[in-house]
Amino acid sequence: MAGNTFGTLFKLTTFGESHGKAIGGVLDGCPSGINLDLEAIQHELDRRKPGQSAIVTQRKEPDEVVFYSGIFEGRTTGTPIGFAIYNTNQKSKDYSHIKDSYRPSHADYVYDKKYGFRDYRGGGRSSARETASRVVAGAIAKQFLDGISINAYVSQVGSLRLEKAYSELDLKQTESNAVRCPDPETAARMESYIKEVRKEGDTIGGIISCVIQNVPVGLGEPVFDKLHAELGKAMLSINAVKGFEYGSGFEGVKMKGSVHNDQFNTDGSTSTNNSGGVQGGISNGMDIYFNVAFKPVATIIQPYETIDKEGNMVKTKGKGRHDPCVVPRAVPIVEAMAALVLADFTLLNRTIKL
Amino acid sequence: MAGNTFGTLFKLTTFGESHGKAIGGVLDGCPSGINLDLEAIQHELDRRKPGQSAIVTQRKEPDEVVFYSGIFEGRTTGTPIGFAIYNTNQKSKDYSHIKDSYRPSHADYVYDKKYGFRDYRGGGRSSARETASRVVAGAIAKQFLDGISINAYVSQVGSLRLEKAYSELDLKQTESNAVRCPDPETAARMESYIKEVRKEGDTIGGIISCVIQNVPVGLGEPVFDKLHAELGKAMLSINAVKGFEYGSGFEGVKMKGSVHNDQFNTDGSTSTNNSGGVQGGISNGMDIYFNVAFKPVATIIQPYETIDKEGNMVKTKGKGRHDPCVVPRAVPIVEAMAALVLADFTLLNRTIKL
Amino acid sequence: MAGNTFGTLFKLTTFGESHGKAIGGVLDGCPSGINLDLEAIQHELDRRKPGQSAIVTQRKEPDEVVFYSGIFEGRTTGTPIGFAIYNTNQKSKDYSHIKDSYRPSHADYVYDKKYGFRDYRGGGRSSARETASRVVAGAIAKQFLDGISINAYVSQVGSLRLEKAYSELDLKQTESNAVRCPDPETAARMESYIKEVRKEGDTIGGIISCVIQNVPVGLGEPVFDKLHAELGKAMLSINAVKGFEYGSGFEGVKMKGSVHNDQFNTDGSTSTNNSGGVQGGISNGMDIYFNVAFKPVATIIQPYETIDKEGNMVKTKGKGRHDPCVVPRAVPIVEAMAALVLADFTLLNRTIKL
Amino acid sequence: MAGNTFGTLFKLTTFGESHGKAIGGVLDGCPSGINLDLEAIQHELDRRKPGQSAIVTQRKEPDEVVFYSGIFEGRTTGTPIGFAIYNTNQKSKDYSHIKDSYRPSHADYVYDKKYGFRDYRGGGRSSARETASRVVAGAIAKQFLDGISINAYVSQVGSLRLEKAYSELDLKQTESNAVRCPDPETAARMESYIKEVRKEGDTIGGIISCVIQNVPVGLGEPVFDKLHAELGKAMLSINAVKGFEYGSGFEGVKMKGSVHNDQFNTDGSTSTNNSGGVQGGISNGMDIYFNVAFKPVATIIQPYETIDKEGNMVKTKGKGRHDPCVVPRAVPIVEAMAALVLADFTLLNRTIKL
Repeated sequence: MAGNTFGTLFKLTTFGESHGKAIGGVLDGCPSGINLDLEAIQHELDRRKPGQSAIVTQRKEPDEVVFYSGIFEGRTTGTPIGFAIYNTNQKSKDYSHIKDSYRPSHADYVYDKKYGFRDYRGGGRSSARETASRVVAGAIAKQFLDGISINAYVSQVGSLRLEKAYSELDLKQTESNAVRCPDPETAARMESYIKEVRKEGDTIGGIISCVIQNVPVGLGEPVFDKLHAELGKAMLSINAVKGFEYGSGFEGVKMKGSVHNDQFNTDGSTSTNNSGGVQGGISNGMDIYFNVAFKPVATIIQPYETIDKEGNMVKTKGKGRHDPCVVPRAVPIVEAMAALVLADFTLLNRTIKL
Repeated sequence: MAGNTFGTLFKLTTFGESHGKAIGGVLDGCPSGINLDLEAIQHELDRRKPGQSAIVTQRKEPDEVVFYSGIFEGRTTGTPIGFAIYNTNQKSKDYSHIKDSYRPSHADYVYDKKYGFRDYRGGGRSSARETASRVVAGAIAKQFLDGISINAYVSQVGSLRLEKAYSELDLKQTESNAVRCPDPETAARMESYIKEVRKEGDTIGGIISCVIQNVPVGLGEPVFDKLHAELGKAMLSINAVKGFEYGSGFEGVKMKGSVHNDQFNTDGSTSTNNSGGVQGGISNGMDIYFNVAFKPVATIIQPYETIDKEGNMVKTKGKGRHDPCVVPRAVPIVEAMAALVLADFTLLNRTIKL
Repeated sequence: MAGNTFGTLFKLTTFGESHGKAIGGVLDGCPSGINLDLEAIQHELDRRKPGQSAIVTQRKEPDEVVFYSGIFEGRTTGTPIGFAIYNTNQKSKDYSHIKDSYRPSHADYVYDKKYGFRDYRGGGRSSARETASRVVAGAIAKQFLDGISINAYVSQVGSLRLEKAYSELDLKQTESNAVRCPDPETAARMESYIKEVRKEGDTIGGIISCVIQNVPVGLGEPVFDKLHAELGKAMLSINAVKGFEYGSGFEGVKMKGSVHNDQFNTDGSTSTNNSGGVQGGISNGMDIYFNVAFKPVATIIQPYETIDKEGNMVKTKGKGRHDPCVVPRAVPIVEAMAALVLADFTLLNRTIKL
Repeated sequence: MAGNTFGTLFKLTTFGESHGKAIGGVLDGCPSGINLDLEAIQHELDRRKPGQSAIVTQRKEPDEVVFYSGIFEGRTTGTPIGFAIYNTNQKSKDYSHIKDSYRPSHADYVYDKKYGFRDYRGGGRSSARETASRVVAGAIAKQFLDGISINAYVSQVGSLRLEKAYSELDLKQTESNAVRCPDPETAARMESYIKEVRKEGDTIGGIISCVIQNVPVGLGEPVFDKLHAELGKAMLSINAVKGFEYGSGFEGVKMKGSVHNDQFNTDGSTSTNNSGGVQGGISNGMDIYFNVAFKPVATIIQPYETIDKEGNMVKTKGKGRHDPCVVPRAVPIVEAMAALVLADFTLLNRTIKL
């Protein structure tokens, strides 16, 4: 169980290192009969790919997905969907600054200790490049979940916080700017700030908020596989994520029960939604919303000291083209992981009654 | 996959409703040869049980665990450990306020919708009573993890926040007071506040912090089963939990990479620990620490309106003896779930090298 | 993954040693809303229990199942069904002939080597007593599979073979005799033979045949989890089983394709059924039939030499009350395991189309 | 759980249809640090590929495996090994005889019924072509299992049976002839017979025997995941397999316990081996041996009647180049599946003691 499979029925297994021949995956358990919109899948990959705007890494990779199986005459067949994305940018580079030393707050050190050695090129398996495979599978999950809408957006960069709730925002604006913040004014301030940070050779963290609408009642499998617990795991499995909260979240701890409780309307909906669309681990039909905290990217373009394999201090400097802030590109990843969770629970929910 | 199993190798399956005959579980995959301290297991259950102090529910249940299998002559045999805790407090009560109506922010409504009907007595399977089984298995995991220390404590009740980091606290003080906050002065204020809330028939949320020390390098299975992702899922699967953050957490998003990065010492340790003991999803040998947010308990002893099964508004009132604040009793549950995660990854980590 | 869980969605986990406090299990994933016939469950246990006839072990154990959870007002709730069967016959016996030496063709030696030590009383976990838990879960699966009939029977004892195919037999006769062979004349000969073998203090093997009727088309999940592959695993996991074949089986290897192929009728049924109701790992709606080979029970009441823990040769003799032939009591176990496989695939099959 | 994953820790997921772009898989959980002999992997594929001799299908496919990930500088990294084998022979053919009608004893009918439609080209996912991916993963497992030898061979074709036990054979002769029978004289007779059957446009079944030597004591996870139960499932999951028996197998049912029991030698080995190297589901260090029955290939080059999708009778005829007898090419597949089972249990066995 090396941990590269996600899901119980709608099940994704990914493979691939940052600078190997290809990354990709197998999506098993996707129901038959889905008329796949392949362009929509590629579109999701394009939202995630490097080089798409001035505030993300300037690496150029086309990130085109190739499907090997599981689709016939435009429809899913119910058999596993194998796919790959070739690593076209894997030219032989100078990796001496990575090969024998450990970059702070990267996975270099722990991979070497755990596995005995590592593919050091571009971070190998620990690179966020792997998440492209998740975006492919998530895009298929979205098509399976036709009718459910999943919208993520950037709600915080550093200390710049979008103070509006999702219900006050026009989420169609998310893609209108490079930051993927649906409030144009806040987006502009975030963009300026990211550019400033980039000039310093530094990086900054951020928060992605996500809202899922039109979810049927009943998704989630207590007691361990609660809907929000799987969403939390899904989000925390994304590179650089440090925290997850849903509904009232960390702020909710300050509330009294008499205020926090969501009163029922006669149709089963609730007048408030501190529950965040999930009660007892099961969706209640209200909007699901949550926040995901991303730390600042560890790769900075500044000189620093670190240790080599022998434990000697060495001076080095980050190189290459990296993201000053990861959240704009992580928006489609958050959506993809949310879609995988919902697709899995949708299938599981078909099996629980006589 | 109705979701009642946790873990891949060190694997707990639980069963039981709040007012059925018994709750319990099967712990499969526990290695053979552990000299079990049965009193230590019962001690963990006692930390969780109702009626132990003035600020928790005054229900009286002995919560004694009975082991059926997997232990011979005091040692684990490597075969599954079956156990049960009888529900002694299951006298026939008046459940009319629950049976036909849905308590706000409880799981009544979603269970009825998902399964078609429900065991309404005391919340049935959705009751936090189920977590007693986790505490049993977690106590065994703790003994397996001999040498690793796992200490949880209450760090916030409502807006009352313990401002000290775990390193400034004497964690041995956690059990010295009813709140389980290791800072006596803050504990006293929290206790008063909880009593005040209880008098109002209301409830209040809180935060539990947890620190895990002496963890070897290498635990965690990327890319999906990252150490912190499984910890997050484990915590989010506990009743009433709304959020999880580790290391720098949500505050970390405001930091720049140059500040957030943890610089290496020559022995592989780091001078700061914003990573929270986990890098790339794998433990790096530093302390693991995280926060878990709990919402206020939904059961309040105040009159309220809600709907019945037919969607009619009905007036009702919470009854019985409930916790005004869940966090004091949830401390051993957080520790138990953390222990289960670490035990599982400890076994998995034996399998990853030639 | 110590191997005590069976099934993916309709999932049984068992626990318990032969002479511990209890055996039992947790059945998770059983759909809600089944009106359970508890007497029918106990009836299946009675078919398996010791002491029921002159040709099985004369041990007396009532084998009464107690349900702890998952059933409310007579119906399954969709939550895990926990149950136990107490070991009432666990009086302190003289185990010196087992404790320090290894009985030939039992699991004593391998358990000691694998786990470091073992619960030697009555074979501990390796005892066929564990299968009582399977019978409980299988009986629930049978009720879920209402409409599908599963009938096993003894078709061979030693070299005494029932030469008729299942279609020539009146399967209602199976329970009319102690051997559970539906052909009365053959049954009588088998019974005499078993008694003769018992007098010698010896044991004898046999074959159980099973036929499953009214199976819908579509059960089975290729490529690895083919219907017959899971049936095979299920049967081979029963104590003393040495072989499994379905449809034409081992005899089919002698046939040519032109003869072996099952020609279609216009309604999709086939005129012959060498396929045994399964094609490409998926049920085709025809009867599923298979044979399961059981070796002679290893415990014989004759003097023999074996080794002790230190590798010294020791003389000993089998004691107690054992089955001279295991197949009569194994009939309900075969049916139970078949029911578990079909129940799981029935649930899985709900998830494979859009 | 569409059933395309095999193994718990050493875990293979395969994808691909007979005439799609590629088949392949992801092997997750393979330990790091194995110096892979890539030629040895390709050699196993060559043993399985079409066109290698006069008695197998004359299709020509190079079946070259491409590795995408998980291998760095010649060694496994512990990350998932992604690989593909391109389908070079997928020229546009006339499939009208397959597209709208159902070939007898193929999976055409059940795939259509289960999934709603199917990729009919060459049998799609139900084609034995998929097993090439298993051979790749099995070849890696063999290298991991350095020291354990796994040798399969053809022991029966039709009624022609090799009467010698594996211990009387020189298994190095297996590859000396096209049939893969280690007894040259029997091999010659089998070869003549297969040619004769092919001339008739017919096919014939057969048996593959397999022996595994130098297995350590302790592999296998009772009670459900017994070593022989997983081997049985592994074999039954191979296309065309109808039966599995190990050790004394179906013949063992005729034996008395006093004869069948394997007496211990003082070193823990046994003087006979009716147990087939497995006791109580756990390897005992003796040779593991088993038989696998294969039915005759369903595709025959003779005219036949069958039904179309609408249930009308249609006359048709098998086309193309097919195997008259599947067992010669299935020998490496049996070995591959055995290797996967042993690799998985080898890893699991590292986790069962303190």
